[in-house]
Amino acid sequence: MTDIEWDDHIAVTRSGDSDYSADLSEGWLVGGGINGGYLLATIGNALSQVAPGKPDPFAVSAHYLSASVPGPATVSTRVLRDGGSVATLAADLVQGGDTRITVLATYGDLGRLPDDVRTTATPPAMAPLEQCVPNTMAPPEVRKFAPLMDRFDMRFDPDCIGWAVGKPDGNGLLQAWFRLNGERDPDPVALLMVVDALPPVTFDLGMPGWAPTLELTAHVRAKPAPGWLRVSHHTRNIAGGMFEEDCEVWDSADRLVAQSRQLARQPR
Amino acid sequence: MTDIEWDDHIAVTRSGDSDYSADLSEGWLVGGGINGGYLLATIGNALSQVAPGKPDPFAVSAHYLSASVPGPATVSTRVLRDGGSVATLAADLVQGGDTRITVLATYGDLGRLPDDVRTTATPPAMAPLEQCVPNTMAPPEVRKFAPLMDRFDMRFDPDCIGWAVGKPDGNGLLQAWFRLNGERDPDPVALLMVVDALPPVTFDLGMPGWAPTLELTAHVRAKPAPGWLRVSHHTRNIAGGMFEEDCEVWDSADRLVAQSRQLARQPR
Repeated sequence: MTDIEWDDHIAVTRSGDSDYSADLSEGWLVGGGINGGYLLATIGNALSQVAPGKPDPFAVSAHYLSASVPGPATVSTRVLRDGGSVATLAADLVQGGDTRITVLATYGDLGRLPDDVRTTATPPAMAPLEQCVPNTMAPPEVRKFAPLMDRFDMRFDPDCIGWAVGKPDGNGLLQAWFRLNGERDPDPVALLMVVDALPPVTFDLGMPGWAPTLELTAHVRAKPAPGWLRVSHHTRNIAGGMFEEDCEVWDSADRLVAQSRQLARQPR
Repeated sequence: MTDIEWDDHIAVTRSGDSDYSADLSEGWLVGGGINGGYLLATIGNALSQVAPGKPDPFAVSAHYLSASVPGPATVSTRVLRDGGSVATLAADLVQGGDTRITVLATYGDLGRLPDDVRTTATPPAMAPLEQCVPNTMAPPEVRKFAPLMDRFDMRFDPDCIGWAVGKPDGNGLLQAWFRLNGERDPDPVALLMVVDALPPVTFDLGMPGWAPTLELTAHVRAKPAPGWLRVSHHTRNIAGGMFEEDCEVWDSADRLVAQSRQLARQPR
């Protein structure tokens, strides 16, 4: 146990040559399922340990097979190739013989990348932290339904929060400030959770409800600076019962530290 | 053999319970390597055959381990889960014992998806086909270096073609019309190639040269209508020696039929 709940929640213990045991926390439940980002970070935490000198996720691709439940789980890992500056890894999150999530990942050392930045992307245009709407304002029934809301301080941009009062803005855009409990600073593995921590962007389109992820790929582009993160979710293509959700995570130093895209089913 | 070279190039023959043999065509060489999109389509073609009633890629995530060479290859497939409307599949492209590409995929039947479309994305703003610059205008030395240029009719938007005359526009944007040789109409598997057929978007940033893909994920969102496709490549975040390349493919009916993102290394 540490004094930071996040580190306990994603903790893994080596239980075999390439297996790691985890204890999935009920604290990350949302409705009947466990938040997919938290699960991905737990897998990512195990993968941090398998290729010497390559602790950081560069690209992680996850396909979601079945809903996880709180309690014991095993992360089975494989090193597909480890040579040069990156390693290609695979992992499965398994509970009671059922694979929940299967992952391919490219890991390396973010600290050894060159310093060049030629980003034309700009940080999300959103209100200052103190003008944003904290998740602690959610009604008790919502917080009971979604215990994960108690794991972090999330401040929603008031320009994208109409859905919370039954008036979705319809732009396919959600934005929020984000910080883990205990002011636990972000790191590359935590970003794998941050990219999937906000409500589904479909909330902003008048489609509340669970949006099961089919596939999510995250690119971690830099080690995040300490402090608050800014997170945006955006979708442009709702079609055939599915939608893509693009996420960007910016750190306190105005660096774009993670980009992700997922394909999810529309809420029913 | 068929009268359409594309179908010969991606052909696979079942050679074991879950293995398929392929013959990688030298026609898709570009510099020292084989085009990654062509390889992904060949893998995708094998995966089309493994889950009954689920012939179409919905989401395909590929991590690239080593450079392929023309000649025999094996696509080894696994069904991780097949139930309900989608199947989760895995595949490795192997040559001489070396894994070239490892893939996770979610397959289904695009023909059984609901018809709803609420896309806010708009087709790429680009010049009409007849005003665009055909790839056949490339100098002979380029076409010798990149035989793949002879596999399709690609017409570059003149607003994004400065790189071809040594004056890159610097916007991180490439756009082109695309059609396979023999007017072979696009299908979902072919889209896995189309998302990686244009030159790297870094050409537009004054960084010519090969940009090795670390990871590429493609979402096929609809069966493409017959005829020409419009393809755009865009990047916003060049940092740490890597860049993301977002691709959209639009069909002749103005439908966004594929979206992809790859993480690649900057050309040296």
